[in-house]
Amino acid sequence: MVTEPNNWGRFGPDDQRGTLNLLTPATVLAALASAATGQVISLAMPIRGATSSAAPTTVPHLRGRPLPQHFMSVDGGDYAAGTRPVGAGLRVADDAVIVTHHGTTTHMDALCHMWSGEELYNGHPAARVRSYGAARCGIETVGGVVARAVLFDVPRHLGLDHLPVDFRISAGLLREIHDDVRPGDVAVVRTGWPLVWDSSPEEYWSGQPGLSAGAGRWLASRDVAVVASDNAAIGGLNARQLADEGLEDDLHMILLWRHGVHLAEMLRLEELGAACAGRAGKDFVFVAAPLRIEGGTGSPINPLAIL
Amino acid sequence: MVTEPNNWGRFGPDDQRGTLNLLTPATVLAALASAATGQVISLAMPIRGATSSAAPTTVPHLRGRPLPQHFMSVDGGDYAAGTRPVGAGLRVADDAVIVTHHGTTTHMDALCHMWSGEELYNGHPAARVRSYGAARCGIETVGGVVARAVLFDVPRHLGLDHLPVDFRISAGLLREIHDDVRPGDVAVVRTGWPLVWDSSPEEYWSGQPGLSAGAGRWLASRDVAVVASDNAAIGGLNARQLADEGLEDDLHMILLWRHGVHLAEMLRLEELGAACAGRAGKDFVFVAAPLRIEGGTGSPINPLAIL
Amino acid sequence: MVTEPNNWGRFGPDDQRGTLNLLTPATVLAALASAATGQVISLAMPIRGATSSAAPTTVPHLRGRPLPQHFMSVDGGDYAAGTRPVGAGLRVADDAVIVTHHGTTTHMDALCHMWSGEELYNGHPAARVRSYGAARCGIETVGGVVARAVLFDVPRHLGLDHLPVDFRISAGLLREIHDDVRPGDVAVVRTGWPLVWDSSPEEYWSGQPGLSAGAGRWLASRDVAVVASDNAAIGGLNARQLADEGLEDDLHMILLWRHGVHLAEMLRLEELGAACAGRAGKDFVFVAAPLRIEGGTGSPINPLAIL
Amino acid sequence: MVTEPNNWGRFGPDDQRGTLNLLTPATVLAALASAATGQVISLAMPIRGATSSAAPTTVPHLRGRPLPQHFMSVDGGDYAAGTRPVGAGLRVADDAVIVTHHGTTTHMDALCHMWSGEELYNGHPAARVRSYGAARCGIETVGGVVARAVLFDVPRHLGLDHLPVDFRISAGLLREIHDDVRPGDVAVVRTGWPLVWDSSPEEYWSGQPGLSAGAGRWLASRDVAVVASDNAAIGGLNARQLADEGLEDDLHMILLWRHGVHLAEMLRLEELGAACAGRAGKDFVFVAAPLRIEGGTGSPINPLAIL
Repeated sequence: MVTEPNNWGRFGPDDQRGTLNLLTPATVLAALASAATGQVISLAMPIRGATSSAAPTTVPHLRGRPLPQHFMSVDGGDYAAGTRPVGAGLRVADDAVIVTHHGTTTHMDALCHMWSGEELYNGHPAARVRSYGAARCGIETVGGVVARAVLFDVPRHLGLDHLPVDFRISAGLLREIHDDVRPGDVAVVRTGWPLVWDSSPEEYWSGQPGLSAGAGRWLASRDVAVVASDNAAIGGLNARQLADEGLEDDLHMILLWRHGVHLAEMLRLEELGAACAGRAGKDFVFVAAPLRIEGGTGSPINPLAIL
Repeated sequence: MVTEPNNWGRFGPDDQRGTLNLLTPATVLAALASAATGQVISLAMPIRGATSSAAPTTVPHLRGRPLPQHFMSVDGGDYAAGTRPVGAGLRVADDAVIVTHHGTTTHMDALCHMWSGEELYNGHPAARVRSYGAARCGIETVGGVVARAVLFDVPRHLGLDHLPVDFRISAGLLREIHDDVRPGDVAVVRTGWPLVWDSSPEEYWSGQPGLSAGAGRWLASRDVAVVASDNAAIGGLNARQLADEGLEDDLHMILLWRHGVHLAEMLRLEELGAACAGRAGKDFVFVAAPLRIEGGTGSPINPLAIL
Repeated sequence: MVTEPNNWGRFGPDDQRGTLNLLTPATVLAALASAATGQVISLAMPIRGATSSAAPTTVPHLRGRPLPQHFMSVDGGDYAAGTRPVGAGLRVADDAVIVTHHGTTTHMDALCHMWSGEELYNGHPAARVRSYGAARCGIETVGGVVARAVLFDVPRHLGLDHLPVDFRISAGLLREIHDDVRPGDVAVVRTGWPLVWDSSPEEYWSGQPGLSAGAGRWLASRDVAVVASDNAAIGGLNARQLADEGLEDDLHMILLWRHGVHLAEMLRLEELGAACAGRAGKDFVFVAAPLRIEGGTGSPINPLAIL
Repeated sequence: MVTEPNNWGRFGPDDQRGTLNLLTPATVLAALASAATGQVISLAMPIRGATSSAAPTTVPHLRGRPLPQHFMSVDGGDYAAGTRPVGAGLRVADDAVIVTHHGTTTHMDALCHMWSGEELYNGHPAARVRSYGAARCGIETVGGVVARAVLFDVPRHLGLDHLPVDFRISAGLLREIHDDVRPGDVAVVRTGWPLVWDSSPEEYWSGQPGLSAGAGRWLASRDVAVVASDNAAIGGLNARQLADEGLEDDLHMILLWRHGVHLAEMLRLEELGAACAGRAGKDFVFVAAPLRIEGGTGSPINPLAIL
């Protein structure tokens, strides 16, 4: 079925890092030169975990997914109610967080997150992805991403607040915005779709704009290390929250599975978009450091742009 | 009781970021120049969350703390057992993670994590730290840390594998290792104590070496933005896993509470120590991006050193 | 404001069990005589915790509440994928469950769940209910409920499938259905509202029928031990999922807070209703055994009716 | 390997309930007659979930297992710190609980919990036990257990506080204590081992006394519905927390897998033992109602004895 071969062996038969291998020290050093002003912008959505309030539902997420939960196991309220300090007067707040990151918050996908048939990216056996974690291609193989990045601010380029729900971004449009994409780059694609959430969660859930298969293939051909977007699945989604494309054209199959390109999804790109508005075409430094969850299918992240 | 005043108002009465305010764009830009080779080293311990195995207990942690848990909600095993692919053939692995970071894994403390009396750092009311999160000084105020860093590899300096359990690092010793500490720096302090874990968890739990009060005051006087260490509490711990110092000399009180210095604990510094061995005195870039947990007392992190 | 006094001291100043004190051994023994056929019916809704599917959303719940999550930490799929058996051939499935029971599944409320002012039921200080649990009136004080029960099948009595959304059940209507209510009884009130879920979650969320304040006062005056219902809050709810009544007439205030009557909510009563249809007025045995969560505000339960 | 056949088809080829099928209405009705005084005793250990204290570690559990966690999402401390009441004055405490019940608290095992080869109890395919739950033999098939029970208080019979660590209870000893075991009964076996916890967790972890294979076979031959004990695995455990027996003699294989006997473990039997001391040989009513977790491998329970 799949006519485009899985990218086996490109970085050697044991490779579990995909195009992240392109992030050599020399590339990292060159990437740091993209910083022009030193302004640091967080590209993460907030995690609002208040279990007994509506707070978590105010952040964009896919319908039906278990939202992050955040619990304090001791806090200032307890001391106000009479809890004794520790020792001579220390007071402490402690907490716990439960996160199911796919579809609920800003995160990076590991190469074990999606596949077809019996093999993950690079021929690693999918049967090694088990209840106690992925013994192949887990998120802990990422280490950290420090790379040159370019922003494709598609709605701004088109004079829109955000892309329409069924908009699929073509390779041509990407090239029109920014043609200087280099091996090891992070392609940051803004759709503006999270803006829809504030006016209507129902509209947010009616589908999502995203990359076309052609755009995905073009980015893969440019050997980007990571594709990051403010939508939930890099490609577009229909009203059932699924991709419309067949297996051949599915963006996760093209990028993650066949080419070993890591994906970062559900970023918050409004502040970055505004900051880059006056400097079209300029690159910047992108840093993402997923938690070292052994065997994780991904991790919540707080990606940083250093302008 | 507290004779050394809380650092109120230093960055203005509403400041919730402490010395992170020193990380101006200009400082960040200057920090990036510390990168010499572009080598990126992750400073995080692995999160081993396999609930039905002994895996989590193989990673250093404070005794009795709830260890991270990691669950797959669908994985390759399910497909091996007959689960049908999504649509035309997509297969997916999805997971969830539960983390109580203090004492269990590499993390950063928010300024709301510890205090004395009724006020957090900078006079913010401790009563605003409640079950649904800290409305003041939460971890989401950090954004991201991109800074110049210096490594104090204390055991290597002393010709030891790791410091003895009751070793308290003096200000003089720090200065002897590295006197060029600048405002906005990250002071990374290696004790080597995690090495003890592999031979004996019981010995690991017998106490911990750490900074003396004097060393904490010296770092604060140098206006460091962050103090990061491979021990669990920056200061030392006794066999009951508590600090021996009184409130006046407690490292969290000195750094976090009085001076607004963020703390990063339980780092993995072995690889960094080895890499820096031949380049004593050299600085590097430190990046940490805590999850944007609104009202969090901290966050698990995967700090990166860019050499 | 509150003109009806909190039921302080009725069972003595230290009482944390409310009307459950009425369940003396003699009462329990008498209650067992209510069993006529030995048929056991579970009154619990299923807990569908599949995190990566829509399963949990197919069970009635209040909008926006964190649904139960259920994770397997090892399962048959892992063995199908090659996991080695334990020892000579043992295979095992293990799991974990996360439950926030209020509003999401069948549960019992502890007496610490709701109050007004500074005091819980019976004058216990509300300040003892802290982040690490309720030191007063927690669910662990319940032990177990074994009691005579009567079913008020209100829609069946009225010839309806379920009550309309704004129906408030009067004391007179309860009495009309079943006047022989005795001290220590469990009053089981069927509204049929969960049936609405299957046709439309949106309609389910548009409000809920429930007891009127008068009905609550009547049940309290009859010294029932527990009021159990298939709705989410014993009283009715409006479209914002809140009670319309003021503090004086709030069902939780009347029953739980003032009279120490435990509440069981979100029961599944369809099977019981059908089984009791031909035996109107007959009593049965009700058993509920909340988990002994120290300081819990309640517990998920699987209540049993023994007919 | 297994010479004793799996109990396939005893209750029909689709049976997922094992010997619980013996709990017919007539049997339940007869069982209720075992109640003599109406005294209700909870047989559950407390769930101490305070995450920031040592509380959970004070309850017996297998070493290394993730202990229950209990979080308040709003509590009295929050109101003491200034949280505004709901509406006209309602205050509320809400919480969440995370439980991995095997090895940590009083629980019942589902028939899908353990097996050998490719098939669960009664030939159900083990491949149907997947990450999203067991589609066969899950805990939700139990409904509720209401049965006659007999207590084998082995240490009291032998004049001991608790059995020695390597004591394996023989069939003869069980018969000596209580020979009148009937089909559908619950056999409650007290070892007293939890008493060891209070003096020394290390001793508790050094192994556990339990049933011998012969005793398991004898109980199975008597068609008991459930075997319940205060130890962690019905059979004994060695210092590695594993059974010493081979597959043939493993208690879970004999009872759960081959004969469909449900197991309840880690009960608290001290109070029951004392209450039954003067009434040796007398039966009582046992009630357990596991949460209806669809596809669960078991459930935390609060079993009740009605004397």
